[in-house]
Amino acid sequence: MTHTLILLRHGNSEWNQKNLFTGWVDVRLSEQGVQEAARAGELLKESGLAPDVLHTSVLTRAIQTADLALDVADRLWIPVRRSWRLNERHYGALQGKDKAQTLAEYGEEQFMTWRRSFDVPPPPLPDDSEFSQAHDVRYADVPDRELPRTESLKLVIDRMLPYWRSDIVPDLAAGRTVLVTAHGNSLRALVKHLDGISDDDIAELNIPTGIPLVYELGDDFTPVAPSRYLDPEAAAAGAAAVAAQGKK
Amino acid sequence: MTHTLILLRHGNSEWNQKNLFTGWVDVRLSEQGVQEAARAGELLKESGLAPDVLHTSVLTRAIQTADLALDVADRLWIPVRRSWRLNERHYGALQGKDKAQTLAEYGEEQFMTWRRSFDVPPPPLPDDSEFSQAHDVRYADVPDRELPRTESLKLVIDRMLPYWRSDIVPDLAAGRTVLVTAHGNSLRALVKHLDGISDDDIAELNIPTGIPLVYELGDDFTPVAPSRYLDPEAAAAGAAAVAAQGKK
Repeated sequence: MTHTLILLRHGNSEWNQKNLFTGWVDVRLSEQGVQEAARAGELLKESGLAPDVLHTSVLTRAIQTADLALDVADRLWIPVRRSWRLNERHYGALQGKDKAQTLAEYGEEQFMTWRRSFDVPPPPLPDDSEFSQAHDVRYADVPDRELPRTESLKLVIDRMLPYWRSDIVPDLAAGRTVLVTAHGNSLRALVKHLDGISDDDIAELNIPTGIPLVYELGDDFTPVAPSRYLDPEAAAAGAAAVAAQGKK
Repeated sequence: MTHTLILLRHGNSEWNQKNLFTGWVDVRLSEQGVQEAARAGELLKESGLAPDVLHTSVLTRAIQTADLALDVADRLWIPVRRSWRLNERHYGALQGKDKAQTLAEYGEEQFMTWRRSFDVPPPPLPDDSEFSQAHDVRYADVPDRELPRTESLKLVIDRMLPYWRSDIVPDLAAGRTVLVTAHGNSLRALVKHLDGISDDDIAELNIPTGIPLVYELGDDFTPVAPSRYLDPEAAAAGAAAVAAQGKK
């Protein structure tokens, strides 16, 4: 028996449109992002893949995406589990900053290192910043030493994988089709793990927004076949757009 | 220390507007119901009562209500627990029937007995009815003998109270402010239990839609003071409207 895992990256947010580093700042989907989520729901419905359980981050844009998509797919009633461990990468002192301005201020090399290096986090965000989540009640149950103030992709993997093992794998093991609705970097972390991508190669991986990515996993919860997007052409175009955005 | 419990009845649905018995049929909120849910979110936000956890039925109209209200209240990220035990009363063979037509067909006495008596259920709904949930995948985990084909209010209490004890009370005991988003009859069942209302008197209790009802409970999880609606005037008008609807 194989296990079905569906990954879905949320679509365009209000801060994507403003070209700001977002990270853990809790912005909403833009109108475009709402439409992407509904389209993802149609793709799910057409595919016949019926999620039995949803895992989301605790960020509104991922929750909105899941709720909109599952509503279209007539699966709004499935059980939901949320965790900060599925949150977007914490962007540290870059959160709330304009991307173009940051590029101009720090130069392209530093900018691209922060964006794409595997293990170099940006400077930490001070707890008194208006863009800090250190005092956000939704993280009240997270031990302070575990609550990030900045993250590299490596640090995202370090906090995401325990949740994969403790919460997502047991749902798969129980025979449930699992939908994970999350973010560019928390999903890259998971895909890196599942596909065994090297620390160097993961920088080149771009996950398009709003297109469900389906894995069939074996009994060891690694893929038995290559993963597939429910709309491969749109996914290729979307990945290229994400890659281009990284180079802007 | 007291425990805070907030009850919220979903608003107008597509079948309310068509004057059909709904029960477990999974219809959506009407536009009016969507607006009621958003208003409930504003009332929650203004009250300063911040739900820490949500319990809903598995019916779309209750889930929509919760998601819309929590979104307005900036609490979309709280943990969610869903159970069929919070569903609306199963209306048996009346599900899908026009209320006026049912009244004409069976006469007012039988009609009011089915609607308002404590322990007389309507005839059971056959499993091959288009309005049956006997083969609905969302109830696949419910043992067949527990899955209702019709219910009186008494039967609603019998299947709702175990969930109150096993799932809601532990959240309250853990110090969480609990929001329960459900239906006219599952909430009447809970209010009957909390306020110790007699089998005879519960018929007169009408819970208005879309207005949060707040309980402060003591260590034995019974009220330490009378419950209160967050908008008392609107609640009184709403309850009167529900009572009038019952007599139409």
